[in-house]
Amino acid sequence: MNVEFINPFLNALVNILKTMANIEVTSGSPCIKTDSKSMGDVTGIIGMAGEKTRGSLAISFSESAIIHITSRMLGEKMTKLDDTVIDMVGEITNMVTGGAKKELVKQGYKFELAIPMMVTGKGHIVTHKTTGPIVVIPFKAEGGEFFVEVCFGKK
Amino acid sequence: MNVEFINPFLNALVNILKTMANIEVTSGSPCIKTDSKSMGDVTGIIGMAGEKTRGSLAISFSESAIIHITSRMLGEKMTKLDDTVIDMVGEITNMVTGGAKKELVKQGYKFELAIPMMVTGKGHIVTHKTTGPIVVIPFKAEGGEFFVEVCFGKK
Repeated sequence: MNVEFINPFLNALVNILKTMANIEVTSGSPCIKTDSKSMGDVTGIIGMAGEKTRGSLAISFSESAIIHITSRMLGEKMTKLDDTVIDMVGEITNMVTGGAKKELVKQGYKFELAIPMMVTGKGHIVTHKTTGPIVVIPFKAEGGEFFVEVCFGKK
Repeated sequence: MNVEFINPFLNALVNILKTMANIEVTSGSPCIKTDSKSMGDVTGIIGMAGEKTRGSLAISFSESAIIHITSRMLGEKMTKLDDTVIDMVGEITNMVTGGAKKELVKQGYKFELAIPMMVTGKGHIVTHKTTGPIVVIPFKAEGGEFFVEVCFGKK
């Protein structure tokens, strides 16, 4: 399996949280997703599309994790999963794929970003429609856990 | 507001349901979405991205509507929101945007499709992260209702 495309997404996420929220995160081992269970309370999703590249990315946060991250990024204490916090999920999703895009173009993956969407709802399940592998990377940070799912490759 | 991009999505959806499921649908008046409330039990979402075009599309089905549509498309009685039905949501989402793409390129909108995703979960809420308009079109068909949301435009 070709996982050369995973690191740019992870590096972008780690850098964003470090520089914009001063949060150090620890990532677990990437694994191949074998079911479609939801792993978070709010998920940012974005499509990536080019003539030879096609992908989808989902970042699922626990409520406590995203409230903490948003509070740190805005310098303002957030207390619930409101519109500001949900918007931040989309913002982070956008920044992560934007950062990864810059690296991936050097590897021959040329693509543009679609409009991000955010999904909320306890127990929601996100399924990527692909026959290719879906890589999941768990993260731990102050405030809670979150997970990145990437499904990406050359057509 | 420029809604020239709406009809190709609607025409594609109506044609797919007519030709592949022999289901006639009635569409209500398109309106601008003003809240982020979910309107269905399962939602197919897909990103569209090009150098000058960026969009997102969501099709939210009630459980009864998608079970009926899937049964008709497969010629097999479906009874619950299982993996086959959820996969069909992604398939329809893919076909609708693929069909719309062929028409939109004639209007100067050139884009590629990302990998579709499907969201399930009672009461889930999908929010498009955009400052532009989100157009919602309600549909009625045998079996129940569904809604198309399109957020699309030139960058």
